[in-house]
Amino acid sequence: MKIPEVRKNINGMSGYVPGEQPKGLSRIIKLNTNENPYPPSPEAKKALENFDWQRLNRYPDPVGQALREEIAAYHGVSPDMIICANGSDDILTIVSRCFIDPDHALACPDPTYSLYVSLASLQDAPCIRIPLLDGFELPDDFEEQAKGASIIMLARPNAPTGNLYPMERMERLCENFDGAVFIDEAYADFSENNCAEFVKKYPNVIISRTFSKSRSLAGLRFGYAIAQPELIAQLMKAKDSYNISMLTQAVALAVFRDHDYLAKTVQAVKDSREALAKGLQEAGFKTVPSETNFVFAMPPDGDGERFFRFLRTKNIIVRYFPGAVTGKYVRITVGLPEEMDALFDAVKEYLA
Amino acid sequence: MKIPEVRKNINGMSGYVPGEQPKGLSRIIKLNTNENPYPPSPEAKKALENFDWQRLNRYPDPVGQALREEIAAYHGVSPDMIICANGSDDILTIVSRCFIDPDHALACPDPTYSLYVSLASLQDAPCIRIPLLDGFELPDDFEEQAKGASIIMLARPNAPTGNLYPMERMERLCENFDGAVFIDEAYADFSENNCAEFVKKYPNVIISRTFSKSRSLAGLRFGYAIAQPELIAQLMKAKDSYNISMLTQAVALAVFRDHDYLAKTVQAVKDSREALAKGLQEAGFKTVPSETNFVFAMPPDGDGERFFRFLRTKNIIVRYFPGAVTGKYVRITVGLPEEMDALFDAVKEYLA
Repeated sequence: MKIPEVRKNINGMSGYVPGEQPKGLSRIIKLNTNENPYPPSPEAKKALENFDWQRLNRYPDPVGQALREEIAAYHGVSPDMIICANGSDDILTIVSRCFIDPDHALACPDPTYSLYVSLASLQDAPCIRIPLLDGFELPDDFEEQAKGASIIMLARPNAPTGNLYPMERMERLCENFDGAVFIDEAYADFSENNCAEFVKKYPNVIISRTFSKSRSLAGLRFGYAIAQPELIAQLMKAKDSYNISMLTQAVALAVFRDHDYLAKTVQAVKDSREALAKGLQEAGFKTVPSETNFVFAMPPDGDGERFFRFLRTKNIIVRYFPGAVTGKYVRITVGLPEEMDALFDAVKEYLA
Repeated sequence: MKIPEVRKNINGMSGYVPGEQPKGLSRIIKLNTNENPYPPSPEAKKALENFDWQRLNRYPDPVGQALREEIAAYHGVSPDMIICANGSDDILTIVSRCFIDPDHALACPDPTYSLYVSLASLQDAPCIRIPLLDGFELPDDFEEQAKGASIIMLARPNAPTGNLYPMERMERLCENFDGAVFIDEAYADFSENNCAEFVKKYPNVIISRTFSKSRSLAGLRFGYAIAQPELIAQLMKAKDSYNISMLTQAVALAVFRDHDYLAKTVQAVKDSREALAKGLQEAGFKTVPSETNFVFAMPPDGDGERFFRFLRTKNIIVRYFPGAVTGKYVRITVGLPEEMDALFDAVKEYLA
C-alpha cells in the first residue's frame, strides 16, 4: 500500500521555511527572526505566578473576551471589531481561508513577507506578486496591477526591507482597491505612524498586530486583527474554536496593560537600530531606512550571501533571502548592545 | 463603501459552535464539553514554576522536537511519524487543508463530531455523511458509501455517542478504503483498546490524540497525530510555522511523562462513568455503552431537549444535539462524584 494522495497544491509546494531556531543558543548571536532582544514585561512573570494551573482542565475562552475588550479600548473601537489569534500567523491563516481560493487571487508586493505566497499555495489560489520600485516603494499603479484580486496583503512597515509606505499612499490604496486590504502591522510599534485608524473609515481594511516583536513574546503566540464587526464575524468562522491557550491569554492580557514597559523597550530598540544603521553606513553598507526592529543592509561587495555565510562562521546568524534584488542584502535584527558590538567586530573583519 | 466579499462557502456557513463556556463557573455544574473534572498532573505546576519567562522573547521550537521524541518513544515509532499541534482541532484543520477541497470529498459517519462537517464547509468540499446503524455502529457498506472521498474522518470512540467500533471492523475499513483514514482518538485513553498500531501497518492511516480529555489540559491546547513519515512531511507544510507556544510545549512534555497520574485519573473517570451509566439505567434512561468520559443517554420520555432544558434550570449544563436521532439524547460528561450526586438529584426531580 502507498501513502494516500494529498491535494496537488500541497504536494507541489515546499512549505514556508521559518528562520533557523538553533538549539544551543548560548554561543550563538541570533539576529535572524526579528525577535526582541529584551525579555517581556515583568507582568508576564506575575501572570504566570498568579495563574491557577489546576483550571487548565477547562477549555479557554474561545474568543479571548477580556483581551478583546482591553485591546478595543486601546484602539478606540468596539470589542466586536477585534479577533484574537495564536500569533498573527494564525490571523493570516484565517484571513486567507476567508478570501482566497483558485478563483479568488491574492495580491502582494515583491519582496515582502514570504509567508503570503505560501498561504496562496495552501489555498491553491493565484498570487499576483507586484514588484516594488527602487527604494522598495509601492508603484503608482499597484492597485491597477492588483485588479481582480480578492485581497491585497502587505506589511507596513514592510519586511524584509523595513521601510514604511507613505500614509497618503496607503489611504489612496484602501480607497481605490475594490477588495479587502490586509495591512500586517507586525512592526508598527517601532514606526512613526500606523494605519490602525483606517478600520474606522474603510470597511475593506483589516489591520493585524502581533505580540512577537515589540512585546517580546514570540514564544507565547498571540496576535490580533482589527476590522469592521461584520468582517470580524466572518473571520471568526474560520478560526479553530479554542485557538488561544489559557496561559497565552493570561500572559498576553497582563503584558498588554504594561504600556510603560513597551515604550521603554521600543525606545531602546529604536536607539540601537539607529546606531546599527549608522555604523553599517560608515562601514560602506547601503541600508534601507528602517521603521522596524531590523535593518536591511547591502554589504559593499553587494553579495548578501557571502556576508551571511561569513557571519555564520562567527556564530552570528542573520537572515538571507535569495533573489535578484534581495540576494544583495541581509536582514539584521536589532540585538542587545553587546551583540551589536560583536556584529561590528565581524563587519570589520569581513571588510579587511 | 461596503464590507469586502468573503468566499461563498464562508459567507454561507454558520461556523462550528463549541459547547458553552459560562463565565461564572462557581454555581454551575459544567458537564457539557467533556473536560476532565480532575486537575492536570502536578507536573504541570512544576513545569510552570521552572519555566524561564524571560525566554518568551524567542520563538518556540517550530515542530516541538522534544515532544515528538517523547511521544514517538511511547508509541514505538520514529519522531518523524509525529506532528504536534495547538490542540487536536489544529490537527484536524491541517489534515483537512491537505486532503479536501471542491474536488476532494470528506466522508464521515452521522452522527459524529460535528466539527468534521464544518471543516468540509471551510474547505468548500463535499461532505458525504454516512448514517450509523442502530446502536451507532458502522454499516457494513461504509467504505462503499465513502467511495470517491479523499479521506474518511471518524472518531473512535465516537462522539457524541461514546461507543467503540470493533477493531476488526476498523482494520477492514483501513484495508478496503482507497484514501486516507483519519481516526480521531480524542477519548482513546478511556477505552479498552485503540488503533495507534495501525500506523505501522497502514500507510493511509492518521491517528490523532489530544491532551484536552484524559490529561486534563483542555486549557493548554495540545494534540498530536501519528502517521507514516512521508504523510507527516506533507501535513507539516500546512501547519502554522510556530503553532505551539513555548509554555504549552513545556507543560505538555512534563505532563506526558507522568504516566501514573494519567492511569489514576483515567481509572477514577471510568469508575464514575460506570456508576453514571448504571444510575441512569436504573432511573429508566437508555444509555449507549461508553468507552469515553461521557455518557450519551436518552431520558424515559425520549425528549433530550426537554431534559437538557430542565437540567439548565438546576444550573447543570449538559450537551444537547438537535436532530431526529441525537435529539432524543443528551450527552453528559463524567464529573466529580459530588457533581454526579447533584445530577442524580435533578434526575429524580425530572422524573417525579
